[in-house]
Amino acid sequence: MSYKYDPQLDGEIRPVSRPVLLQSLTAVIPAAAILHSEEQLKPYECDGLSAYRVTPMLVVLPETVEQTGAVLKVCHRLKVPVVARGAGTGLSGGALPLQQGVLLVLSKLNEILHIDLENRTAVVQPGVRNLAISEAVAPHGLYYAPDPSSQIACSIGGNVAENAGGVHCLKYGLTVHNILKLNMLTIEGELLTIGSDAFDTPGFDLPALVTGSEGMLGIIVEITVKLLPRPQAAKVLMGVFDDVQKAGNAVGAIIAGGILPAGLEMMDNLAIRAAEDFIQAGYPREAEAILLCELDGIAEDVDSGVEKVGGILRDAGATETRIARDENQRKLFWAGRKSAFPAVGRLYPDYYCMDGTIPRRQLAAVLHAMGELSAQYQLPIANVFHAGDGNLHPLILFDANKPGELEKAEALGGKILQLCIEAGGTITGEHGVGREKINHMCLQFNTEEIRQFHAVKRAFDREQLLNPGKNIPTLARCAEFGAMHVHNGELPFPELERF
Amino acid sequence: MSYKYDPQLDGEIRPVSRPVLLQSLTAVIPAAAILHSEEQLKPYECDGLSAYRVTPMLVVLPETVEQTGAVLKVCHRLKVPVVARGAGTGLSGGALPLQQGVLLVLSKLNEILHIDLENRTAVVQPGVRNLAISEAVAPHGLYYAPDPSSQIACSIGGNVAENAGGVHCLKYGLTVHNILKLNMLTIEGELLTIGSDAFDTPGFDLPALVTGSEGMLGIIVEITVKLLPRPQAAKVLMGVFDDVQKAGNAVGAIIAGGILPAGLEMMDNLAIRAAEDFIQAGYPREAEAILLCELDGIAEDVDSGVEKVGGILRDAGATETRIARDENQRKLFWAGRKSAFPAVGRLYPDYYCMDGTIPRRQLAAVLHAMGELSAQYQLPIANVFHAGDGNLHPLILFDANKPGELEKAEALGGKILQLCIEAGGTITGEHGVGREKINHMCLQFNTEEIRQFHAVKRAFDREQLLNPGKNIPTLARCAEFGAMHVHNGELPFPELERF
Repeated sequence: MSYKYDPQLDGEIRPVSRPVLLQSLTAVIPAAAILHSEEQLKPYECDGLSAYRVTPMLVVLPETVEQTGAVLKVCHRLKVPVVARGAGTGLSGGALPLQQGVLLVLSKLNEILHIDLENRTAVVQPGVRNLAISEAVAPHGLYYAPDPSSQIACSIGGNVAENAGGVHCLKYGLTVHNILKLNMLTIEGELLTIGSDAFDTPGFDLPALVTGSEGMLGIIVEITVKLLPRPQAAKVLMGVFDDVQKAGNAVGAIIAGGILPAGLEMMDNLAIRAAEDFIQAGYPREAEAILLCELDGIAEDVDSGVEKVGGILRDAGATETRIARDENQRKLFWAGRKSAFPAVGRLYPDYYCMDGTIPRRQLAAVLHAMGELSAQYQLPIANVFHAGDGNLHPLILFDANKPGELEKAEALGGKILQLCIEAGGTITGEHGVGREKINHMCLQFNTEEIRQFHAVKRAFDREQLLNPGKNIPTLARCAEFGAMHVHNGELPFPELERF
Repeated sequence: MSYKYDPQLDGEIRPVSRPVLLQSLTAVIPAAAILHSEEQLKPYECDGLSAYRVTPMLVVLPETVEQTGAVLKVCHRLKVPVVARGAGTGLSGGALPLQQGVLLVLSKLNEILHIDLENRTAVVQPGVRNLAISEAVAPHGLYYAPDPSSQIACSIGGNVAENAGGVHCLKYGLTVHNILKLNMLTIEGELLTIGSDAFDTPGFDLPALVTGSEGMLGIIVEITVKLLPRPQAAKVLMGVFDDVQKAGNAVGAIIAGGILPAGLEMMDNLAIRAAEDFIQAGYPREAEAILLCELDGIAEDVDSGVEKVGGILRDAGATETRIARDENQRKLFWAGRKSAFPAVGRLYPDYYCMDGTIPRRQLAAVLHAMGELSAQYQLPIANVFHAGDGNLHPLILFDANKPGELEKAEALGGKILQLCIEAGGTITGEHGVGREKINHMCLQFNTEEIRQFHAVKRAFDREQLLNPGKNIPTLARCAEFGAMHVHNGELPFPELERF
């Protein structure tokens, strides 16, 4: 993840100076909302992918939608790129600043504007924390379903930008399935309302297009989210396996049984031992794999489901099944899973968390191939993942102080993503493309497809001022990365090569 | 629904003659795949919205993806507009031809290319009938969930183009939630693959953008659909009400109870009597409203759910609840609902089927307001709708032979859509915008939003050759329709006014 700054590829070609920009911005928003000294800028130089760091020219923290629009108008006029940032918990560098750009931090737009109990929706600003929504509506027995691991800290605007998932997205969907309407500012500072309070939205499905677009199409300033009634009951079942492949096959068998678990997670031995040592969740240290399967809903349905899943797990070769006996043990089972990343982090000086998705049936085969790659690169891989929807999170363990190990880990990570593509899957699951996987997009999509992405981008942001250099690679980058065919040194679509 | 042909608004400004086009097309596809005589063209002059009729210049029926691409390349070169058509069952005129355009009929691309049982997906061509997918996978206990009423006849390509729903979309989602990947030809004839076989798709969510885009962004030539295991059990419960408002409130109470029915449908007295007279479904003729609530899943869960829903219905004031005693009666209960449109059609010479969506909590209020509109316009309205997701299908009854009644019905329909918007809903549910509701889009969206739709359109089809005049109104049309503000006779964005 060594970051080489390349002004050409990174699109920072505009020589607007910091004083000029500062002057223009202070004309439209309070001076206190602008950070410009080195010590003020330092904390914003990276998001959750801390291997990539760039100090932004300026950080702006607007307090109102009007101020946000005013900032965009100034940036549009001066042709200064804008990177949006929520809580900065993203794992793919989607909020990595630009040296000659504004970092637009939306954390002060943090009000829950309206809760509609009858219609089960909430209208919130982008800086509202994910968990804060569920907390606000908990007295009414409601909650907001998508639950990324960072939900205590991450903000809903960032969730929309990255189309965040979580443990429960198998049953309840990704962010895109849990929002109804967005208010968005264009780079020109115009306010658009896309989507509606109802089930369907006429015209093109712009809310779905904008969700997961990583701040490249507009700045989201208001989100109408769906709320769900908190399930009456929830139970979690642990299946213990002496073979990873058997656990992988059990996942398919549960889904094939017509059961839709609220969560269906898998951990391999390395992850199990790390979590157990860290938090004493009651996991069997000797198991090759465990599955955690949560069922929720009406109490009787949950009970009958647990029984059925138990049978499926045993048929699939589980050496043991355990039902969490009470709410405390249920939480403990999950605590082990949720702490697996930091727990694995204790084993090795560094780890690199991957995020790819594969068709569920490929689970066993991909796990096997990853084992071979791990041996080949001589770097251990711990596996902790959302098995139910095929979203893998292999953790590559390495020591950045050993010469060449970081590069080896990066190369192994690239191989794993390639494996996901070859298995019919994708290079992302729920962490986004951001800066981290921009090169891998060239593996996933061909020239025509990348060209179409750029055309859509230009339909919102003709001058490519919004988060340039993220999510969608330039064709120049793909050519350089080696995945694309270049005739006589000419790029197929030279007109696209602004960034 | 009187159709006034307006060459300026309808974008038919290109003087390519039929012989020139015919010659160019026969150079790239077999002559037998081209229809051009008046009697051959006649059957294609309308889709399911038969009040609008236009004879296309030519009809082309390609048999392969390659032929389809070749047709597009010719049309692109000659700047001839292209309207795609599947089975022609659409209800909003989305496949209405253009006098100077090609009607590209995809019904011969009707192969199921691949069924992947392990991963529960099927790869199909656009001309495959919706029901044929479920029939093909039935021996494996699987089915394709979205079930528009026309599912015997309608094709999956049209379902994607219109984002079709059906009785079961409350639980199983619209078409967009049941597809993974699309192969699409651009107007230039380039093949794009968008989406993936896995849960997530990196980059912008183009499959969601294209779904429901009504043939304006590209021609879909291959669809990977999700398959679901057929539920072990299904039961249907009828709630009988002496008051429409009570039935409306019962809908909210069922959802609030944490129950997700497979279908939740409502019929009012006029619809009940019509269906009962037509098909003897066993409905109570005197009831003001009935609710049909289907639960599906594991047998025990279904039983406990039925019990719970029964209690909720009685608490909401149902005078009676009936559980279909066996599979035959279950089918009979649904047969009444499914035949409600033709049944109502027997009452009056003509009916106009509306399609709008409202937030569920507004159900009772909107039903009341529709009753008032019905009295005001002196036209009866029968209500048959997907209550669970707020998708209304009011049937306005009229007699087209009485002078002025058709216009009155259209005006009343417009008022109902306006009511949907005012209630926080939308002018469509599952039938699309097409030609029918192009004016109403001007009520739903403002200038900036319409402008953004056009920008997206141009990102796929710069010259606006794909299905012009549907789905997204021009700003000129909106100005004419009276919903937009025009300064000194100047349109806000004159550059958009190609069509």
